Amino acid sequence: MAASSSSNLLVLLLLFQPCFLFLSPASAAGRFSLPRKPDPSNAHATARWLASQNSWGVLSTISSDLGGSPFGNVVSYSDGVPGDGRGVPYFYLTQLDPTARDALKDERASFTISEYPLGTCKKIDPENPTCAKLTLSGKLKLVETNSSEAKFALSALFAKHAEMKTWPKNHKFQIFKLDIENLFLIDWFGGAKPLSPAQYLNPGMDLPPLISRA
Amino acid sequence: MAASSSSNLLVLLLLFQPCFLFLSPASAAGRFSLPRKPDPSNAHATARWLASQNSWGVLSTISSDLGGSPFGNVVSYSDGVPGDGRGVPYFYLTQLDPTARDALKDERASFTISEYPLGTCKKIDPENPTCAKLTLSGKLKLVETNSSEAKFALSALFAKHAEMKTWPKNHKFQIFKLDIENLFLIDWFGGAKPLSPAQYLNPGMDLPPLISRA
Repeated sequence: MAASSSSNLLVLLLLFQPCFLFLSPASAAGRFSLPRKPDPSNAHATARWLASQNSWGVLSTISSDLGGSPFGNVVSYSDGVPGDGRGVPYFYLTQLDPTARDALKDERASFTISEYPLGTCKKIDPENPTCAKLTLSGKLKLVETNSSEAKFALSALFAKHAEMKTWPKNHKFQIFKLDIENLFLIDWFGGAKPLSPAQYLNPGMDLPPLISRA
Repeated sequence: MAASSSSNLLVLLLLFQPCFLFLSPASAAGRFSLPRKPDPSNAHATARWLASQNSWGVLSTISSDLGGSPFGNVVSYSDGVPGDGRGVPYFYLTQLDPTARDALKDERASFTISEYPLGTCKKIDPENPTCAKLTLSGKLKLVETNSSEAKFALSALFAKHAEMKTWPKNHKFQIFKLDIENLFLIDWFGGAKPLSPAQYLNPGMDLPPLISRA
């Protein structure tokens, strides 16, 4: 009986191991620190892992120069200092570049990252659904200078992109962030995973799944 | 005098060496084969090098699901068989995915690739302008099945993405291409390089530069 209880407990522990791994006290507070790829069944952990492990992606805006066409631009970002990602991508942009100018005219934007450059897809094709990809959609907003959020964002950015500290002052770099309204995560077969901003930003929450986009 | 002529010829050859390297008979016919990164002063060669060396990027459309917001998606592509890039990116997409559905409702799209995953930026930040980035903007169009272009595109795609051959038939993958109308290339300090679709697609042409976007 005691042996049976132990083995049941072991089975339960094995079944829920991903949850124990991902929902540490830090992640329950909206923080995230996980060096290894989560199990694909854990959508929010995979999305947060992608956001915390990558350092660059493509930020798409509605182009004012191109009459409202979409315009994707390669940018660096950070969602926190290494080991303490918070999920919200912060950017260091100059209005010399069209992306920042676009956002100040039309905030709608999406930010796309891939597992492929992390090296964990190995020989799997970048478009294969098991090579995870994440698109965060929402509003690209300027972060108020001298705010506590700006201070946090700057330390997050400089921690992962040290050379930003030396970028020319006269380019007037400003901190932007993506206010996330929608997530599109592919990390396995069967289409996009239902994942809400609340689930993504607070991995400890247990909300009902949303309708998938694909 | 003879020595002086030889040395002048040598100086000329060294000065124009990049042109000889890039404008091989193959490139003059719109083809491109260059394993090493071109000199940043050679904008069309750099753009074609990025397109031929990369295997994936972010394809941005106007999202019908998200009320017209931009939507970037990680996709694989090919512009030709290895060593024979033609500059036009071809994609293998299914309408189970929002990108193909978006394009069939609104063709406006952009395709963005970075030098960073190629490894040649080394320790330079992905957003640093010397780590080259390219955005091709235009119309994302379905390639007619059974056309000679479809045959070319399929061999180009399968040569670089062998596993595509085994992707599920019932997902009804279709070939799309980006008809390029605008280029945004950053490969050095000083903003985007002026580069027209004609210059990009026919590197042998010597057209006057266009106005830069940034």
